[in-house]
Amino acid sequence: MLTERTPRVAAARKLLRRVGRERAGRFLVEGAQAVREAVEYARVHEIFATGLALDRNVDLVDAAEDRGIMVTPVTDKAADGLSDTVTPQGLVAVCDLVDVPLEQACEDARLVVVLAGITEPGNAGAVLRAADAAGAGAVVFAGDTVDPHNGKAVRASTGSLFHLPVARERDLPTVLAALHGLTLLAADGHGELDLHSPQADEVLAAPTAWIFGGEAHGVPDTVLARADHRVRVPLYGRAESLNLATAAAVCLYASAARQRSRITDRG
Amino acid sequence: MLTERTPRVAAARKLLRRVGRERAGRFLVEGAQAVREAVEYARVHEIFATGLALDRNVDLVDAAEDRGIMVTPVTDKAADGLSDTVTPQGLVAVCDLVDVPLEQACEDARLVVVLAGITEPGNAGAVLRAADAAGAGAVVFAGDTVDPHNGKAVRASTGSLFHLPVARERDLPTVLAALHGLTLLAADGHGELDLHSPQADEVLAAPTAWIFGGEAHGVPDTVLARADHRVRVPLYGRAESLNLATAAAVCLYASAARQRSRITDRG
Repeated sequence: MLTERTPRVAAARKLLRRVGRERAGRFLVEGAQAVREAVEYARVHEIFATGLALDRNVDLVDAAEDRGIMVTPVTDKAADGLSDTVTPQGLVAVCDLVDVPLEQACEDARLVVVLAGITEPGNAGAVLRAADAAGAGAVVFAGDTVDPHNGKAVRASTGSLFHLPVARERDLPTVLAALHGLTLLAADGHGELDLHSPQADEVLAAPTAWIFGGEAHGVPDTVLARADHRVRVPLYGRAESLNLATAAAVCLYASAARQRSRITDRG
Repeated sequence: MLTERTPRVAAARKLLRRVGRERAGRFLVEGAQAVREAVEYARVHEIFATGLALDRNVDLVDAAEDRGIMVTPVTDKAADGLSDTVTPQGLVAVCDLVDVPLEQACEDARLVVVLAGITEPGNAGAVLRAADAAGAGAVVFAGDTVDPHNGKAVRASTGSLFHLPVARERDLPTVLAALHGLTLLAADGHGELDLHSPQADEVLAAPTAWIFGGEAHGVPDTVLARADHRVRVPLYGRAESLNLATAAAVCLYASAARQRSRITDRG
């Protein structure tokens, strides 16, 4: 049973930080559900598990070993050291980073989601989950948005990180160039286009890139200026706002409904 | 400056627990934004504030005192004792419970939201916020759903607790009886009606009560059996589910859009 001082465990622990992930090209995935998704959809190098976790996840361990993935018992303390949660799960996979080149991610996608400056990992992961649910073809982590491989972002995505192409690009003009051919919609609480208006209905039917900005400042001005429309989710009651992931889900489902009804109309 | 041992402070501290709130008919509201909403929309008995909070919220203190609400300086320790957050805000209002009788809440509402067994306060507050944003006429905390006056629920609602009628009723048959005349829609991941189907489009135009169930078990079977339709949010990608508040927002906005376009069609 490996301890926290074993070189392989110590090396894995460096993946808790972004700089360590970039250097190794790998990241950590924690907990049974996420590790199961990783084994199915990602490239997993090895899995560390406590005795208790091994006992509790016999099927998962079998599935991993069937795929030639090494599953190594570790001490509780070693497992705790590989976790950034308050309640470590005792089960951690070391995986290759999942992001793909920007152009490849966006190719042929009719619904692309761009996170432009989302710094809270839980929000970024929740938007990724909503994008997956709404059938987006790609998600781009743009500008100074948090790393999708951040532990909290991975958890909040509940597996969606592994379900659709995810790209990272710090340079916003490069991102916008990659979205050519798509209608650019910037989510903006003060946008001139009401998501529920008849005009929006027409706009939403086209292949679209939705851009969601950071919690504090919204979509960056340089991107707003390039958007085809700034779209607001109407607030019918007295609420001052929706939370970011909720607003994103409402926008993306509006697009999904409209795009699919258009396909049905034609069919 | 009152300390944590002052009887008024000690009495207020009991409002952190549900039994204390029920006994006194009052609850605590913490932080500048929430206290501002409470001062505007609720019945506030008094406000406790640290010296720092008084300095930082001069306008709010003035507004409260203009309404005849007593603002009392307290020590940091006293303020901490009135908070259930990790980072106490130093500003706490003592308010009357806001819930109204069930029949009164539902009267004339064209869009009612029923929380049936939601036990996580953050989720309940987030659904309340989404209900407010989507223009719901009332929210019912039904069955063994968490108390809307729970501190975490109040925070997650970001003021929405004060914006629309909220009712509480433990007895589910009583709740269903109060919803007579409304189409009952139960949100259900396995529901037979797809939210985006043409059939749903017709259903959503009518005055509606949406029922959302608990995180683990969904809408209780007894309620499902009485629903006119069990509605699922379609999952177009590979996500296994949406989180509760996100799913609720997508459902409620679908209703709001349909109900309002019907009004426009007629107009």
